[in-house]
Amino acid sequence: MKLTLGDLEDLARGAAFLGTGGGGSPYAGRLMVQRAMEEGHTVEIIDLEEVPDEALIIPTAMMGAPTVLIEKLPRGDEAIKSLRTLERHLGRTAYATMPIECGGINSTMPLVVGARLGLPVVDADGMGRAFPELQMETFHVYGVPGTPMVITNEYGDSTIVQTHDNAMMEWLARGITIRMGGAAYIAEYSMDGRTARRVSVPRTLSLALQIGRGIRAAREAHKDPFAELIALLRDTPYQYGRIIFQGKIVDLWRETTQGFAKGRARIQTLEGGAAVMEILFQNEFLVARVNGELRAIVPDLICILDSETAEPITTEMLRYGQRVKVMGVSVPPIMRTPEALAVFGPRAFGLEAEFQPIETLA
Amino acid sequence: MKLTLGDLEDLARGAAFLGTGGGGSPYAGRLMVQRAMEEGHTVEIIDLEEVPDEALIIPTAMMGAPTVLIEKLPRGDEAIKSLRTLERHLGRTAYATMPIECGGINSTMPLVVGARLGLPVVDADGMGRAFPELQMETFHVYGVPGTPMVITNEYGDSTIVQTHDNAMMEWLARGITIRMGGAAYIAEYSMDGRTARRVSVPRTLSLALQIGRGIRAAREAHKDPFAELIALLRDTPYQYGRIIFQGKIVDLWRETTQGFAKGRARIQTLEGGAAVMEILFQNEFLVARVNGELRAIVPDLICILDSETAEPITTEMLRYGQRVKVMGVSVPPIMRTPEALAVFGPRAFGLEAEFQPIETLA
Repeated sequence: MKLTLGDLEDLARGAAFLGTGGGGSPYAGRLMVQRAMEEGHTVEIIDLEEVPDEALIIPTAMMGAPTVLIEKLPRGDEAIKSLRTLERHLGRTAYATMPIECGGINSTMPLVVGARLGLPVVDADGMGRAFPELQMETFHVYGVPGTPMVITNEYGDSTIVQTHDNAMMEWLARGITIRMGGAAYIAEYSMDGRTARRVSVPRTLSLALQIGRGIRAAREAHKDPFAELIALLRDTPYQYGRIIFQGKIVDLWRETTQGFAKGRARIQTLEGGAAVMEILFQNEFLVARVNGELRAIVPDLICILDSETAEPITTEMLRYGQRVKVMGVSVPPIMRTPEALAVFGPRAFGLEAEFQPIETLA
Repeated sequence: MKLTLGDLEDLARGAAFLGTGGGGSPYAGRLMVQRAMEEGHTVEIIDLEEVPDEALIIPTAMMGAPTVLIEKLPRGDEAIKSLRTLERHLGRTAYATMPIECGGINSTMPLVVGARLGLPVVDADGMGRAFPELQMETFHVYGVPGTPMVITNEYGDSTIVQTHDNAMMEWLARGITIRMGGAAYIAEYSMDGRTARRVSVPRTLSLALQIGRGIRAAREAHKDPFAELIALLRDTPYQYGRIIFQGKIVDLWRETTQGFAKGRARIQTLEGGAAVMEILFQNEFLVARVNGELRAIVPDLICILDSETAEPITTEMLRYGQRVKVMGVSVPPIMRTPEALAVFGPRAFGLEAEFQPIETLA
C-alpha cells in the first residue's frame, strides 16, 4: 500500500485515537510525513506477511514526554540516525522499519524514516495502543530483547544501550532521554520477520487510517461520529467501544517529571451535577473513575475526544473548559493475557485496582 | 617496569595523595590489583615514550561518587568489559591501557585491566590529580574527543556514548552512572601514542609510587613524613608543597547528589582557637579557606593527611574528630595554562574566586 498525502490527516487522527492520550501530537506527526512526501519520497506500507522470515526489521520511535515534544519538534532525521547507528552496530541492514506503538508521532515517525530511506514500513506495532515505557511492548511480553538500542538527540549525540533485561533498558534510556532534554529518538527491538509475526499487534497502521477516515466521513455526512466509531470498531480486534462520560474539563493538573507527562484531569457534566470523572495519566490515560467508581482501566483504551468533532485530544493538549466525550475501548486478546497484564496492567503503573474489561463495567 | 606485590600499598597511598580526596579508596584499589597478581597475572608499566606512534591506548576508570563505591566494590572485570566493547565498536585492538586520573581506585583500575588482559599500562594520566568530571582532562584541554566511550555496570549492562563535545559526554555519562546505581566503569579518550605524548601528564604512576614509598620510609625511619614529602616533591613537576593548616575535624557535611559526593569539612586547631579552616569538595577537595581567607584552590592539590602518619584521607573517609594536617601542592605548568584553567579552574566548579597559585598565598 502506498500512502497518499490525503491519507495523512486521517492516519494521524486514527493513530492519536489508538494512542489513548499519548504518542505525541497528531499535527506534528502529520507535518513530518507531509514534508517528506512533498520532497518526492513515497511511503510504502507492507503487511507482516510480506516480510521474509530472516529479514531484519528495525522499529523506530520518539521517546520522552509529549509535553516536551510540542516545544521541540523533530526533523525526522534523528530517528534515521538511530536506525543507521543500530545497523552499523549489528553489522546488518534493515529490510523495513515499524512503529513500536500507536500515536500521533509514533505512528508517523517510522513513515518518515521509511520514506527518506526507501524502506517499507510494516503495518503492525508492539503495543496496539501507546504506553509510556519501553518494556510495555508485546515484543517484550513474548520474549524479544529490546537491546541493542540506540537513542539520538537533535544534535546528533547518540548512545547505544545494551542491557540484561528490558526493564533496565527502559531505566537507562529514560535517564538518557531526560539528559538529552526530555525528548529523543530511538531504534530498538530489532527482530526478523518470523519473530515479528509472532509478537506484534498486526494491522494497526491500517486500523488507524480506517478510524481516522471513519470519523471524517461521519462528520462530512453530518452523522454522529461517535456512533460510527463504535460501529466501525465492532469489526476490528478492538470490538467493543462505549461512551463512558461526557462533560467539560473543570480541573487539570500536570507536571513533566522523571521524563514523563504525569497528571490528572477532572470532567464534570455540563449540567454541573455531582458526577465527576477523574482520569489519571502518565503520557497516556491510565484509569477513569466517576466519584471513585471504576469506569475503564489500562490496558483498555481511554480516549478523550472533542464532544462535537470526535477529534482525539492528547494529554498535552488538554485544556480547562474543553467539551469532551470519553470513550472506553476493549483491546485485542493478545493484550489481555496474564503475561501481558503483568507487563502493562494496572499494577505496572502503581495502581491498586485489578484489571476489569470495559465490557464488564457499568 | 614490573610492579611487585610489595609496591601496591605504596602506589595506592601515593595515588590517593595525588587524588586530592577523590579517585576512590586506596584500600579497595590495592585489593583489586593484589587479587589479580596473586592469581598469577603481572602488571607491566611502560613509559609514554615506549608506545608506538600509531598504537591505540584505551584508558579505563571508575566513574561515580566515591561514597557509593565503598559500598559496592568493583570486581575489576567491569572496566575490562568497557575496554573490550570499545575495541569492538572501533574495530581496533588496544596496545595498552592508561589511567585518566590519579586516585586510590583510578590509578589501580587500569593496572587490574592491564594485568588481566596482558596489556601494558602507560605511566601517565589526563589530570595529574583527580577531578570529578570527565571533561576535566588535559586530554580534553588539548583537543582529544572523549567519545566513543563505554560505560558498564556490575551486571554487564553497558552503553556506548557518542557526543558532539566532551561536556555533553560528561552530562550523559553522569546520568547513566546515576541510573546504574552511582558507580560504573568506563573506557574513553582512546588515542594513539603520538597524541598521548602531546596531551598527557607523564609519569604520574611512578610519582605515586615514589610518594607512597617516601611516606612509608619516613615513618620507618621515625622521621617527619611531611617534611620528607615536601622535600621529595621539590624534585618533581609538582615542586612546591606546604602545610596550610592542622587541627581536628569539627564539622562535616556531605551528601551524595547528582552522582557526586559533595560537601564541606571544617577543621579547628587542637588548641580550639578562633582559626577554622573550611574545605569544600565535589569528590575532590576544591578550595580551602581560613576564616574566609583563601589558602589553596583548585587545580592546586589540597590533601588532607593523618597528622601522625601522613596517610591521605579521601573525602568519603573523613570523620568527625580526625586529627589532620592539610597540605597544599602546586600542580605542573601544563595544568595552569589559561586553557587548562578554563576547564578545571575555580569557575568550572561554580566558585567565585580566581585561581591563585599556592606559592603566592600566605
